[in-house]
Amino acid sequence: MLDRDQCLALDAEDPLREFRHEFVLPDGVIYLVGNSLGALPRRTAERVRRTVEDEWGRQLVGGWNHAGWYEQPLTTGDRIAPLIGAGPGQVVVGNTTSIAVYQAVAAALRLRPERRVIVSDLRNFPTDHYIVQGLAGLLGGYELRDLSEGSFEDAAVVLLSEVDYRTGARADVPAVTAAAHAAGALIVWDVCHSVGAMEVDVSAADFAVGCTYKYLNAGPGAPAFLYVNPRHHAAAENVLSGWHGHAEPFAFEADYRPAEGVRRFAVSTPHVLSFAALEAALDVWERVPMAQVRAKSMALGELFVELVGDRLELASPADPAARGSQISLRHPDGYPVMRALIDRGVHGDFRAPDVLRFGFAPLYIGYADVYDAATTLLEVLDKELWRDDKYATRLAVT
Amino acid sequence: MLDRDQCLALDAEDPLREFRHEFVLPDGVIYLVGNSLGALPRRTAERVRRTVEDEWGRQLVGGWNHAGWYEQPLTTGDRIAPLIGAGPGQVVVGNTTSIAVYQAVAAALRLRPERRVIVSDLRNFPTDHYIVQGLAGLLGGYELRDLSEGSFEDAAVVLLSEVDYRTGARADVPAVTAAAHAAGALIVWDVCHSVGAMEVDVSAADFAVGCTYKYLNAGPGAPAFLYVNPRHHAAAENVLSGWHGHAEPFAFEADYRPAEGVRRFAVSTPHVLSFAALEAALDVWERVPMAQVRAKSMALGELFVELVGDRLELASPADPAARGSQISLRHPDGYPVMRALIDRGVHGDFRAPDVLRFGFAPLYIGYADVYDAATTLLEVLDKELWRDDKYATRLAVT
Repeated sequence: MLDRDQCLALDAEDPLREFRHEFVLPDGVIYLVGNSLGALPRRTAERVRRTVEDEWGRQLVGGWNHAGWYEQPLTTGDRIAPLIGAGPGQVVVGNTTSIAVYQAVAAALRLRPERRVIVSDLRNFPTDHYIVQGLAGLLGGYELRDLSEGSFEDAAVVLLSEVDYRTGARADVPAVTAAAHAAGALIVWDVCHSVGAMEVDVSAADFAVGCTYKYLNAGPGAPAFLYVNPRHHAAAENVLSGWHGHAEPFAFEADYRPAEGVRRFAVSTPHVLSFAALEAALDVWERVPMAQVRAKSMALGELFVELVGDRLELASPADPAARGSQISLRHPDGYPVMRALIDRGVHGDFRAPDVLRFGFAPLYIGYADVYDAATTLLEVLDKELWRDDKYATRLAVT
Repeated sequence: MLDRDQCLALDAEDPLREFRHEFVLPDGVIYLVGNSLGALPRRTAERVRRTVEDEWGRQLVGGWNHAGWYEQPLTTGDRIAPLIGAGPGQVVVGNTTSIAVYQAVAAALRLRPERRVIVSDLRNFPTDHYIVQGLAGLLGGYELRDLSEGSFEDAAVVLLSEVDYRTGARADVPAVTAAAHAAGALIVWDVCHSVGAMEVDVSAADFAVGCTYKYLNAGPGAPAFLYVNPRHHAAAENVLSGWHGHAEPFAFEADYRPAEGVRRFAVSTPHVLSFAALEAALDVWERVPMAQVRAKSMALGELFVELVGDRLELASPADPAARGSQISLRHPDGYPVMRALIDRGVHGDFRAPDVLRFGFAPLYIGYADVYDAATTLLEVLDKELWRDDKYATRLAVT
């Protein structure tokens, strides 16, 4: 078992150590919620200020041409592409993950009109189910089948997450993709909990969706992305057929006519201020060696698991290779335990009914942080500090 | 005909004159595109900085609770409500107008399952058609009928714009709403081109949608809003059934269960940085007497029409009461004419095939601005300044 000095030594020789200075983090906080909302990159404030004051303020509506706003869904898509194993012209950015799921699943159903089964996974983040339920309810005649039933037979589309939001369990993307295709189904991967934490490769998938506000650090409510495999660019339909996906949006034609390529999956006016923060975040990622991120992520997780020992049940897989970049632990009073921990500067989060989540964002979390977090957790448990009444009150967002 | 000194005198006695100081406008520019992208309110930069640095940077994921991010779709909705004749708990903010149109029309179709006709208007902004075409194509079996055919018979839903984006013509909202209802149809009003320019009242409608980046000045790609009449709150379904519309999003239940009230039309994570700019914009609107805005808007438009005289064909209605807050003029070479005008500091825009648009945002445009804009336009025409080759090249966004 490593002691704190050994952890500090690991931090000193960490090849990613300089990235810590790229982020603003409050004093006295060990922030282990980068799997939910990434930390603020130091360069973001100036980039957003520039968009507000120099672009909007001075160029006004001309910003659509001169500041590149109109092209942002594609230019940022091309910058996200290398993070998910995709190429240029294959990723469009905008809206939210829920909306991207809707677009991807609806497009897949249109590509497999003879099939009537949608496979999802109860372990997906719930909005993925909810969106599929809404779409299936609108269309009628579809069977929703859970992955636990074990079969892709007759499936039109399979919607799965690369990393389980609750446990951090990582799916075998190549194997499951191949199995879906062998059954004649299309597959949509949700990479919200893997992108920016490991080398992601969705290039064999039909569609992929993800958010940019977790490990990518693009800020609260940052735009989502949608990958469409080039083999579907000609035939796939965007059922949210807004004007920015039109072949000539500024011709103001009466009828929708889809743009070529992934642009047809753009919907409408991009949220430009949120894109500014995304651009700043991507500036950081262009210099990040993802293999080092994954190696450090696994090392940080293992260190945390070892330090906590058998004091709490591990909800995550025991094998680091089978996990994302989070460690989930179970405790029947998980909510007040997490509140007590946050009160002591260690920020994780809670997922009902009993999961404590600790996300390790390797760009700004170090070995000594993990040591201190585990030590504080053990103290909260050993001294039963979580039993204080003030930790029982539920906040709106947990 | 007023001369420039008389215009300056009108500006000096304008009851809205102090609002001009609330906006940042570049020197040497007369900005008549507030009907497309509103100008930057002076307070916005600091409000956005606060969200980036103080909220995201310091509160991190805690901002969802402590900075009010989670509630923003409803808190900003309650602040927009008075601008459209709605009450608290009737408006939800987020996403884009195109997506709000999709939600509203889909919900209306579900409320009128026995009907198979959707009435739209070729004069609507094209994305409204495109979205309806995509939805009808997905569902199958619907007839799309243009308003010009003159009948609401058998219509499930009627989708119309209060103000025509191209000509500025204003619809008779109470009369058309009553006619739609008399035919048993539901009605969705798009108020993108009227909200913030006049007293809007959608309270008799079933749904209304609008954007906040035009007269409301919330910035490029600012979130859209969706009004749902309370009589539909119990039965209306959000087909984009994302987790933020769930009754208990943080219970992470397997099945979608809609929230009470308009919250069920929330979809997913709000674009928080864009909401910050919206909040700053709404701070201004709380002090604005809308009747004065409308009176000044009509006076500015009339002044412009009088000054231009019969030099160009008026595409807008001649009666100021039948217009929104823009004047549209036709010219066969409208594109280079507008480019030449912009080159001389008068910013309007062009809409294919031949329309020059001039928007008058009464909070920051004055009578002398209108005088100078009209004078410059006449000079561009009289001296044929627009024939310079440099004005022929098309920009991506026109």
